[in-house]
Amino acid sequence: MEFNNAQRAEVLINALPYIKKYNNKIVVIKYGGNAMVNEELKKSVMRDIVLLSLIGIKVIVVHGGGPEITEVLTKMKIKTEFKNGLRVTNRETAEIVQMVLSGKVNKDLVNLIGNSGGNAVGISGVDCGMIEAKMKDTELGYVGEIINIKTNLIRDLLEKNYIPVISTVGFDKNGNIYNINADTAAARIAGELGAESLVAMTDVIGILEDVNNPDTLITKVNVSYADRLIREGVISGGMIPKVECCIEAIRRGVKKVFIIDGKIPHAILMEMLTNEGIGTMFV
Amino acid sequence: MEFNNAQRAEVLINALPYIKKYNNKIVVIKYGGNAMVNEELKKSVMRDIVLLSLIGIKVIVVHGGGPEITEVLTKMKIKTEFKNGLRVTNRETAEIVQMVLSGKVNKDLVNLIGNSGGNAVGISGVDCGMIEAKMKDTELGYVGEIINIKTNLIRDLLEKNYIPVISTVGFDKNGNIYNINADTAAARIAGELGAESLVAMTDVIGILEDVNNPDTLITKVNVSYADRLIREGVISGGMIPKVECCIEAIRRGVKKVFIIDGKIPHAILMEMLTNEGIGTMFV
Amino acid sequence: MEFNNAQRAEVLINALPYIKKYNNKIVVIKYGGNAMVNEELKKSVMRDIVLLSLIGIKVIVVHGGGPEITEVLTKMKIKTEFKNGLRVTNRETAEIVQMVLSGKVNKDLVNLIGNSGGNAVGISGVDCGMIEAKMKDTELGYVGEIINIKTNLIRDLLEKNYIPVISTVGFDKNGNIYNINADTAAARIAGELGAESLVAMTDVIGILEDVNNPDTLITKVNVSYADRLIREGVISGGMIPKVECCIEAIRRGVKKVFIIDGKIPHAILMEMLTNEGIGTMFV
Amino acid sequence: MEFNNAQRAEVLINALPYIKKYNNKIVVIKYGGNAMVNEELKKSVMRDIVLLSLIGIKVIVVHGGGPEITEVLTKMKIKTEFKNGLRVTNRETAEIVQMVLSGKVNKDLVNLIGNSGGNAVGISGVDCGMIEAKMKDTELGYVGEIINIKTNLIRDLLEKNYIPVISTVGFDKNGNIYNINADTAAARIAGELGAESLVAMTDVIGILEDVNNPDTLITKVNVSYADRLIREGVISGGMIPKVECCIEAIRRGVKKVFIIDGKIPHAILMEMLTNEGIGTMFV
Amino acid sequence: MEFNNAQRAEVLINALPYIKKYNNKIVVIKYGGNAMVNEELKKSVMRDIVLLSLIGIKVIVVHGGGPEITEVLTKMKIKTEFKNGLRVTNRETAEIVQMVLSGKVNKDLVNLIGNSGGNAVGISGVDCGMIEAKMKDTELGYVGEIINIKTNLIRDLLEKNYIPVISTVGFDKNGNIYNINADTAAARIAGELGAESLVAMTDVIGILEDVNNPDTLITKVNVSYADRLIREGVISGGMIPKVECCIEAIRRGVKKVFIIDGKIPHAILMEMLTNEGIGTMFV
Amino acid sequence: MEFNNAQRAEVLINALPYIKKYNNKIVVIKYGGNAMVNEELKKSVMRDIVLLSLIGIKVIVVHGGGPEITEVLTKMKIKTEFKNGLRVTNRETAEIVQMVLSGKVNKDLVNLIGNSGGNAVGISGVDCGMIEAKMKDTELGYVGEIINIKTNLIRDLLEKNYIPVISTVGFDKNGNIYNINADTAAARIAGELGAESLVAMTDVIGILEDVNNPDTLITKVNVSYADRLIREGVISGGMIPKVECCIEAIRRGVKKVFIIDGKIPHAILMEMLTNEGIGTMFV
Repeated sequence: MEFNNAQRAEVLINALPYIKKYNNKIVVIKYGGNAMVNEELKKSVMRDIVLLSLIGIKVIVVHGGGPEITEVLTKMKIKTEFKNGLRVTNRETAEIVQMVLSGKVNKDLVNLIGNSGGNAVGISGVDCGMIEAKMKDTELGYVGEIINIKTNLIRDLLEKNYIPVISTVGFDKNGNIYNINADTAAARIAGELGAESLVAMTDVIGILEDVNNPDTLITKVNVSYADRLIREGVISGGMIPKVECCIEAIRRGVKKVFIIDGKIPHAILMEMLTNEGIGTMFV
Repeated sequence: MEFNNAQRAEVLINALPYIKKYNNKIVVIKYGGNAMVNEELKKSVMRDIVLLSLIGIKVIVVHGGGPEITEVLTKMKIKTEFKNGLRVTNRETAEIVQMVLSGKVNKDLVNLIGNSGGNAVGISGVDCGMIEAKMKDTELGYVGEIINIKTNLIRDLLEKNYIPVISTVGFDKNGNIYNINADTAAARIAGELGAESLVAMTDVIGILEDVNNPDTLITKVNVSYADRLIREGVISGGMIPKVECCIEAIRRGVKKVFIIDGKIPHAILMEMLTNEGIGTMFV
Repeated sequence: MEFNNAQRAEVLINALPYIKKYNNKIVVIKYGGNAMVNEELKKSVMRDIVLLSLIGIKVIVVHGGGPEITEVLTKMKIKTEFKNGLRVTNRETAEIVQMVLSGKVNKDLVNLIGNSGGNAVGISGVDCGMIEAKMKDTELGYVGEIINIKTNLIRDLLEKNYIPVISTVGFDKNGNIYNINADTAAARIAGELGAESLVAMTDVIGILEDVNNPDTLITKVNVSYADRLIREGVISGGMIPKVECCIEAIRRGVKKVFIIDGKIPHAILMEMLTNEGIGTMFV
Repeated sequence: MEFNNAQRAEVLINALPYIKKYNNKIVVIKYGGNAMVNEELKKSVMRDIVLLSLIGIKVIVVHGGGPEITEVLTKMKIKTEFKNGLRVTNRETAEIVQMVLSGKVNKDLVNLIGNSGGNAVGISGVDCGMIEAKMKDTELGYVGEIINIKTNLIRDLLEKNYIPVISTVGFDKNGNIYNINADTAAARIAGELGAESLVAMTDVIGILEDVNNPDTLITKVNVSYADRLIREGVISGGMIPKVECCIEAIRRGVKKVFIIDGKIPHAILMEMLTNEGIGTMFV
Repeated sequence: MEFNNAQRAEVLINALPYIKKYNNKIVVIKYGGNAMVNEELKKSVMRDIVLLSLIGIKVIVVHGGGPEITEVLTKMKIKTEFKNGLRVTNRETAEIVQMVLSGKVNKDLVNLIGNSGGNAVGISGVDCGMIEAKMKDTELGYVGEIINIKTNLIRDLLEKNYIPVISTVGFDKNGNIYNINADTAAARIAGELGAESLVAMTDVIGILEDVNNPDTLITKVNVSYADRLIREGVISGGMIPKVECCIEAIRRGVKKVFIIDGKIPHAILMEMLTNEGIGTMFV
Repeated sequence: MEFNNAQRAEVLINALPYIKKYNNKIVVIKYGGNAMVNEELKKSVMRDIVLLSLIGIKVIVVHGGGPEITEVLTKMKIKTEFKNGLRVTNRETAEIVQMVLSGKVNKDLVNLIGNSGGNAVGISGVDCGMIEAKMKDTELGYVGEIINIKTNLIRDLLEKNYIPVISTVGFDKNGNIYNINADTAAARIAGELGAESLVAMTDVIGILEDVNNPDTLITKVNVSYADRLIREGVISGGMIPKVECCIEAIRRGVKKVFIIDGKIPHAILMEMLTNEGIGTMFV
């Protein structure tokens, strides 16, 4: 279907209240892993982000990159073991994780944003000592637990109207580096900055009452209800840590948190700039 | 026809290059007179302007108000004479012109912008000595010719992200006030500010090769072609001074000038944020 | 009598402590209605205001304009009814009130300030959502009670060294406009801004113990004494609301409030820059 | 004679055009030597300067202090020799000159300004390397010729609204200090800063056609006429270097230079804030 | 040998003129490749850089990383071919180059600076569109020639006192990425910023008249002499492009360029903060 | 002994943690009286201060000048009487104290700093009303007790990277001036500014357990231990007021206070920039 210009204008003007609502507010977008299914989609998401930035929203992108890490490790013939869904990370692997996240995934996103006309700056948790971490569990090796977040660099970049794109690598004072879960880091960064919203782009459409039935999407939950959904097993498996990060973000003062399906084109615009969301909103 | 959210998002993202192009640029919108046909339309135009402001454009509204002036003069039983289409303006009339433009038309627009969530400040050419004028023709009385424009107040308001709404009343050093043609004032203000665009909202769809045939719209003219169209009589009557103002604006350095039909809903958004303009563009 | 230059210099130097006292302080001057008796006087008052501004005082002018409103209504053959001294204001009248206050009285003052070398910006309570109001009494119609004052525009103008000249029209979120009592608005604005002084220029010399004997001027009252004077009937009639506004301003934190006779030439300079006041001071 | 408040106000308002003219402009006042005849007068001059500062003029005081230097040298039993009116200055004398100018005359003026409510900062030409000098004539010793003026400190102080009070001691890169003629330094400083005016306060009423007849005061001269008056001997003796400094200041871009009699109370206010000057003006 | 504190203080004070000379100046340090011989040395160089930053120098680090690229390519079993000393770079290799430079070498340096107390921000030529490039030679593939440098991000980071650490990857508008020679990029960046100095840290002690005799070090050359040394074959092989970059930097306005041996501990401090340089200086 | 460049670099890099620690912190240095033993030493101390300033420390110098005062009084044949170690100061003496401190000692230090490349501004407690004082004891005359410190001028000078050099003369509102003890003033200024350190340069090596045995230096004391040492007589005579000032500074929030021997070359650098202090540190 094609739109004519009058229809286009109509749509634009209908976005006015949403644009107004987010004007000059900080929005953290968690993107990565399974939502980065192909190049076309990645380009499209980055273009959405440029739009958000241009219409006056202070956007921060926090990304993961599990599949890309696995791909490079495979090419380098390094075996990865997982424990409870977490990658066991020795020093060599940690370095490869950093290399892939900060040198490949991060710069790809930065470059795509640039090609759509945005001003992105790709940084990581080691830049300017942003994410200080420690070992969580010696069996997992350099999988980091965040012990401190310094947001001065992010604030300085936002002040100058750059879009910070952050790879979630942490450091400690002994010079070690850590693989940090991107959902956790995004929640913590959003909390520290008093963000208006955290948008977690995943590959599911949100929280489903019946995981096999997309019509059972829960469009809005509050923290205590989400807690209960976990206890009752409605939320299970890989969704549990994601939902816990959402809850954590709300607890740390983020106004609204969304889980949306990053595979849907312009999911983020639909969620933020139209009258009905498309995923699950935490309040 | 109703759009679904995916379609809405699609439209928004398609506006990206236009939003980018105008980001942080100054756009002067001449509005008034015959284009202000009803309250609904006026509201709609003001909402469009709030949208432009929110997405990062430095918008200035310059307005006229001939019909409103006539209406008040009539109510006050003051007769108006016109000479060559210009209102003969004695001192009493000049005061009523000022009263209507600055106290009625101006504040209505300001109020409508406020109700749509914008931050408008209504000023006139006497505020902070903005438009200095002199008599053009003693037979016409206080119809002013601009002799100087001071833009410091406009610049200060734009810097603080206000939308200046300007009624085109001028002053001289003897305390007289003048009725200033709004098209002329808009062109001069746009020129002084080095505006990216001047958009003249009128009640015609643009320059027509055959004034009776809307299919003969000339979508783009340069200055010399426009001059020729006037000389050849293609442009005639009340369109001549309007087109001359457009030419003047281009000559004073405004990058692009548009004549569009303000009666078409969202004409300004269509012109600025979609891939094809709807009126005549001067370059 | 003529002064020689030595005498002039002597007078100037004697103003030093007063100039110092008010340096960089905010002073709200309520002007209007009965104090605006003729053009010469108005010019003179505006010149006084330019002087105060140039010597470093942050001056704000808040004006009314009852007589001018009545004059225009009369010319338009619209009858006005008064209830308890307040003008019954239907929608049509409210629009005329706005038109006269913002388009005539306001711009006249702005123009006079400009002609004396000051930088005035005329705004109203609808500009940038400054005065939000609601109906006070349905019988009175659009006579507004202030429910919120936003001072950001005033502060921005003062920061850039402009003299804000404010007409006291209010708005509500449904697009209605209201006639707001200028004394009340001045008191509220002075309070919100933490003004050093509020100077109410009226057509009486101050509070008199015996209203028929100007020698009984009370030069200084505190809030509780003023309250008592009202209760005891010493203050009566139209003076009651004026005095109540003065009391309100003191209660909202304005340091000193003055009622002075605007008909005396340079009354404001005498009050502010010489060793003895000329009206009644509230503390 | 006593003035009443109405008269006082009248005088103040008459100063408006002069206050406006000097608003935010730089004025350098050379004060010292013979014009500092007694404590009362000094206090009065400093009070005048505080007034000028408070009404928005950027005042800089440059002072000399010959009589005070002589007094201290006498107390210390150090003999001074003069050659062509210039003090022969060996190293010991130069140190005493610096001590008296920067430690006594300068701080006295600073203290008097402070006591009248002004914010003065007393500095000398050695502070922040302001006045670099070299020997003019080996027979005169440490009498300095200015080779460079750095105005950054003065500008920083003016920006923060301090009144710089400058003693004219110079330095060289070998650690020597120099006695610098205060008229010369004031002219140079005024020139470097693009001052609006330089006011030289002396003990004569201006340039007289007949030095014995005060009625022959020349109220206004241009540079070429002043040159001629020197050549023709109308200006002679100690007035020559003073007039030459005035000419120099005009040549370096100062708009107006005044020689006035500092012994007349409020001479500076009379010159700057009233309709007729009292000394000689160079243009 | 141990120093006592008096000796240490003596050394510090002797550095004063050098510290003064570079205060607040921009210095670009090219580091990488063969100069990064071991972890200890890398740490030490980064500590030197933190010192320079802390004493008020605006330091920018530009790095290469040929050996690390080769190492990763080898691990991934990707063969590299060289043509005239330049790596033939297909799309896959270009991505690995980016990954290694921006994700490994860059972040290692950033982390080391952080561990020594500096505030480094690791960026690449794709961040904020810094280095726009095009193909130099289709046979070489994605080996980029710089067509434009945008320095706004670097300037913003320096303004906020961060140390920018730059990996020299370029981009084009079609989304391709390029391997950019770090010496060239450093010279261009230094030129664009009007740097005071460019310090190229290599693994040779400078330009030798006799390449086999370190005693024949040429401590200072100007551009024309350096040109001649190339023509005469004194400078040969891999030194030619390095020297050409140095010459280019001088031509683009960098005041002084140094080639120093990065393998010597604290070479950079010796060159910049002591009385005799240790390599070759271009002027 | 001569150092080679490698050794020099080694020393510089070892200062890194100390430079980092003091970066951008305020340090008040009390200098004067007995520590100013000769010109060479004074030059050397000022050079040390320039170094501290250049490496990013906000240095303030507070000086006394007892010996110089005595010298000038002697030359002027004015007798001085001391009561409990304090100079009896009549009005004439107070003026000479001011003249010597502000005009001689102060400007000498300023000039020396300038000759070493620093930007010093010499001010006194009368500048901008910095030190308000009152009489302490009528028998002592104009020996002042501080009643108020205004630090705005110091802060403004530090903000613009000047080194304030302060002579400790006080004033009262009656125009009197006072001799203020420099140790006391330095402690108060350091306290008001929340300084990181106060360094009191004296002519003793610190607090000794046995005043005759330099090997009994107490390198570190806290406030209560210092109090006890006074009570027990370990600290006695002229050291008591000095130590009390140190204690006072700590109580007013200065982090660390040092007493060091200003006669040792570079004592201040040794104390601040090396691993072991050389005097007594109060915490």
